[in-house]
Amino acid sequence: MTALTWNDITTARERIAPFAHVTPIMTSASIDQECASRVFFKCENFQRSGSFKFRGAVNAVAALAPAARARGVVTHSSGNHGQALALAAREFGITAYIVIPENAPRVKLAAARAYGAHVVTCAPTQAAREQEAERIVRETGAVFVDSHDDPLVIAGQGTAAVELLNDAGTLDAVLVPVGGGGLISGTAIAVHHLSPTTRVIGVEPAGADDAYRGMRAGKRITNFVPNTVADGLRTSLGELNFAIIRKAVDDIVLADDEDILAAMRLIWTRMKIVVEPSSAIALVPLLTGAVRGRRIGIIITGGNVDFAGAGVGM
Amino acid sequence: MTALTWNDITTARERIAPFAHVTPIMTSASIDQECASRVFFKCENFQRSGSFKFRGAVNAVAALAPAARARGVVTHSSGNHGQALALAAREFGITAYIVIPENAPRVKLAAARAYGAHVVTCAPTQAAREQEAERIVRETGAVFVDSHDDPLVIAGQGTAAVELLNDAGTLDAVLVPVGGGGLISGTAIAVHHLSPTTRVIGVEPAGADDAYRGMRAGKRITNFVPNTVADGLRTSLGELNFAIIRKAVDDIVLADDEDILAAMRLIWTRMKIVVEPSSAIALVPLLTGAVRGRRIGIIITGGNVDFAGAGVGM
Repeated sequence: MTALTWNDITTARERIAPFAHVTPIMTSASIDQECASRVFFKCENFQRSGSFKFRGAVNAVAALAPAARARGVVTHSSGNHGQALALAAREFGITAYIVIPENAPRVKLAAARAYGAHVVTCAPTQAAREQEAERIVRETGAVFVDSHDDPLVIAGQGTAAVELLNDAGTLDAVLVPVGGGGLISGTAIAVHHLSPTTRVIGVEPAGADDAYRGMRAGKRITNFVPNTVADGLRTSLGELNFAIIRKAVDDIVLADDEDILAAMRLIWTRMKIVVEPSSAIALVPLLTGAVRGRRIGIIITGGNVDFAGAGVGM
Repeated sequence: MTALTWNDITTARERIAPFAHVTPIMTSASIDQECASRVFFKCENFQRSGSFKFRGAVNAVAALAPAARARGVVTHSSGNHGQALALAAREFGITAYIVIPENAPRVKLAAARAYGAHVVTCAPTQAAREQEAERIVRETGAVFVDSHDDPLVIAGQGTAAVELLNDAGTLDAVLVPVGGGGLISGTAIAVHHLSPTTRVIGVEPAGADDAYRGMRAGKRITNFVPNTVADGLRTSLGELNFAIIRKAVDDIVLADDEDILAAMRLIWTRMKIVVEPSSAIALVPLLTGAVRGRRIGIIITGGNVDFAGAGVGM
């Protein structure tokens, strides 16, 4: 396992500074009242490409040696990582090959193309995605950038928590959505360095509970079929991510789809910001009372919603 | 006609400062590109009560003599003005009586109640609303606060444009949605004082084009049946509003519902903020090319959307 430390996060901060936004922190008096906490929302929905994934992607691209980078980058991601890598590649004037299952929401294909990526569709299976990405690496020499199981990606994602702690001050806990584990592993490293008494708690869909079960079983669980509205959290934990989570994450709690959607509507209605279901999940434990604390940080991971597909009739 | 000047707006600024937010200005590189303009969005969707209406309402309530204020305030508004007046009354610990048609979106009733208002429902006609409000004034001594045809309300609404010009710098034009005319008349007074070369352009639904036709006819048009998705803009212009608009507004342009909804989805998708159709309308002339300019200000009036009613299936 690659060792990953606070130094990697400070290096990532310097590397991404010319590209990424320092996103705002928002608060809501009425949500505070419902949660009986002071809640600090780190708004990565306002990050470039619409999610925190840009931090990790641009860190990975910027860290490549120029000769390797010139051959381009490739990933298979139906979602935010694909868009983020496409934008990161565009910043460096290189090609991003994004392998996307043919049944992905059209907003995601369109967004990757809008960022200038070379989009390759494939059958909607993990095997087909991996094979297609391997073929592109073989034929073009492009560098594969994983969405979460990559130390540079993890270090980049950890920079959001640094900004959160710098701006919000002391926090009792930071709540983070868990999918592949890139964000929570970077967050755990950052928070435990900067504020060792702040708890890092992952929130995972009940229908994709591999981190929850893996923590309890003491081994990584990969053989499961996700079933959740939080489409960004269907991925299983990576190896590096699982190792960091076991060591540095205080707890994983679950949220069911109904509560995720209620939290999303609450954020839209009260805060007037667009957040994905995969973001809103982090608020659920505060609304249900599963997690309590005086001052809580939440990373709002992204705001890429397919309004046409979601049936917004207006 | 009550004379209304720049002094009324500076007084309003001082009066509302302890209550209202100075809302942020947002920009979007991708929307700038589509419009071939630098567009500054004054985000009143982040204003307290979810719309700019709080500025006028709290100015009107704060200006009342304490003895009169103690008897409460009343208005008939199915929408944002009702919520704004409810919140303004709560700030002063007085009763707000809000008359709402029984067929109004439930989010609006719930919001007025959540702000502690005494909500009175009535038949969905203008006459029923006015009669009910008059009855409450008669029986309680509460002060009626109109949503737009009131100098204190207009002066309060004008404060948003002051902040916009202060923060964004020189602008070629400011685009403002037109309903009852409270916002655009306050905006026109503020902009023409601070930046006489900046054009003030109203944007009105094609299905509620009383300001557009009234400007051309030289008289206020009140006898029309609105038909537009922009529910906040169905009101007809007030007398005071029409007088100010004739004198100080450079142009009124129209937008049809299809373009309004497309602009709303564009703002939601690109900027990750929740805006009402009645807000998004102001972007339409830039997207269609009806209005052009190098630097344009847009007042995003509010973000109160009934997500349940809108059929957001997610």
